[in-house]
Amino acid sequence: MVMTGRFISLEGGEGVGKSTQLLLLAEALKARGLSVVTTREPGGTPGAEAIRGLLMTGAVDRWSPRTEALLFAAARADHVERVIRPALAAGSWVLCDRFIDSTRAYQGVAGGLTDDEILALHRVGSQGLMPDRTLVLTMPVAAATARMVARDGADADRFAARSDGFLDRVADAFVALAAREPERFRLVAADGPAEAVTARLVAALADLTS
Amino acid sequence: MVMTGRFISLEGGEGVGKSTQLLLLAEALKARGLSVVTTREPGGTPGAEAIRGLLMTGAVDRWSPRTEALLFAAARADHVERVIRPALAAGSWVLCDRFIDSTRAYQGVAGGLTDDEILALHRVGSQGLMPDRTLVLTMPVAAATARMVARDGADADRFAARSDGFLDRVADAFVALAAREPERFRLVAADGPAEAVTARLVAALADLTS
Ligand SMILES: Nc1ncnc2c1ncn2[C@@H]1O[C@H](COP(=O)(O)OP(=O)(O)OP(=O)(O)O)[C@@H](O)[C@H]1O
Ligand SMILES: Nc1ncnc2c1ncn2[C@@H]1O[C@H](COP(=O)(O)OP(=O)(O)OP(=O)(O)O)[C@@H](O)[C@H]1O
Ligand SMILES: [Mg+2]
Ligand SMILES: [Mg+2]
Repeated sequence: MVMTGRFISLEGGEGVGKSTQLLLLAEALKARGLSVVTTREPGGTPGAEAIRGLLMTGAVDRWSPRTEALLFAAARADHVERVIRPALAAGSWVLCDRFIDSTRAYQGVAGGLTDDEILALHRVGSQGLMPDRTLVLTMPVAAATARMVARDGADADRFAARSDGFLDRVADAFVALAAREPERFRLVAADGPAEAVTARLVAALADLTS
Repeated sequence: MVMTGRFISLEGGEGVGKSTQLLLLAEALKARGLSVVTTREPGGTPGAEAIRGLLMTGAVDRWSPRTEALLFAAARADHVERVIRPALAAGSWVLCDRFIDSTRAYQGVAGGLTDDEILALHRVGSQGLMPDRTLVLTMPVAAATARMVARDGADADRFAARSDGFLDRVADAFVALAAREPERFRLVAADGPAEAVTARLVAALADLTS
């Protein structure tokens, strides 16, 4: 089997299980003999993690959606240049916890920037790099929020602290983006035992792993 | 006299006297009865000053020019939205220590991004806001560096620590930008006593103040 790097992003609203599944999916792919790099956004490099610190802390209105979009694009540029592209070039599979579609959903659809604006920033920052497959974990916002509250108690970050209306718009945005690019996206139900969700994710990569 | 806000940027390489002249020019304009707001980039708001902290500290190669351009655009978006536009709308003159042309010179001409890329970020971040007048202070790089060393000793920030070749490219870039937009730009000699330089700057605004 020729080892070719593939770039996979995991997307979805707060608390759907992205970080949990990223690790489980990485194990499943490694068990098939693939070299796997796991990473997250915003973050993944020392510089991008420093930007993450600015983005995730402080008052909900600390940044406008426009400034946020630029900060995410800056963190992503560093991450793509210093981690993602080198790993893909080395033949690894890269599993990333959130990527460009989160910016399109949060700062775009829910935040009011146009998709063209977000994609223009992505072209300048990251030469428009797109995942080979984007797995969107879906579940009702209330159920995902319950998972989050069980995990964090009252410690919401700047995004998890948004209104239910905002989180609903984000969830709808992922479904709408997926409908526009059916080749790249797969919607995967996030309910039930973690192992069952992982099996669905592995199935949603079948055409890439075979 | 109708009070109309005007947006003036001061540009030029490290140590030419921008910050010194900003204060002197503000005094001169206030003495004419104008309402004047002085500010600086990167910075000018709490958020943008936090981004400035990321930009100015750390190793010279902490950020690539591309990530830098996005961080400057993020700081500028916050600054424009929260300080510059409101001040102009209130009829004040805004004097800003560096603005978009510094990004065009440092990350563009000297850093390798195209001018179109920098201006695309500026359109998304700040709706492409341009100064009414941009005053470029010019003097030989060696003389400006001598002023800086006298001021700071060995404490160079990430930009002042660049090679002479980099600083030469920046100085040339300001002159080239000025040649392309003669209406907006004025080149002003930065040598001689500070008061003489201020008089030249005031003269370079004559068409806006009369
Ligand atoms: N299938 C599952 N069943 C029950 N609980 C789960 C399941 N998957 C994850 N959880 C729990 O739900 C919480 C949220 O999961 P996780 O942190 O993976 O979500 P996330 O999508 O990464 O959230 P965030 O958007 O905040 O990063 C965690 O406490 C996790 O242990
Ligand atoms: N006309 C002048 N003659 C002699 N020294 C001057 C003159 N103007 C400024 N200086 C001194 O030169 C040094 C650099 O000036 P200043 O800090 O204003 O430059 P700057 O362009 O703002 O630099 P930077 O790019 O580092 O922000 C300071 O120590 C300042 O006091
Ligand atoms: Mg997570
Ligand atoms: Mg200065």
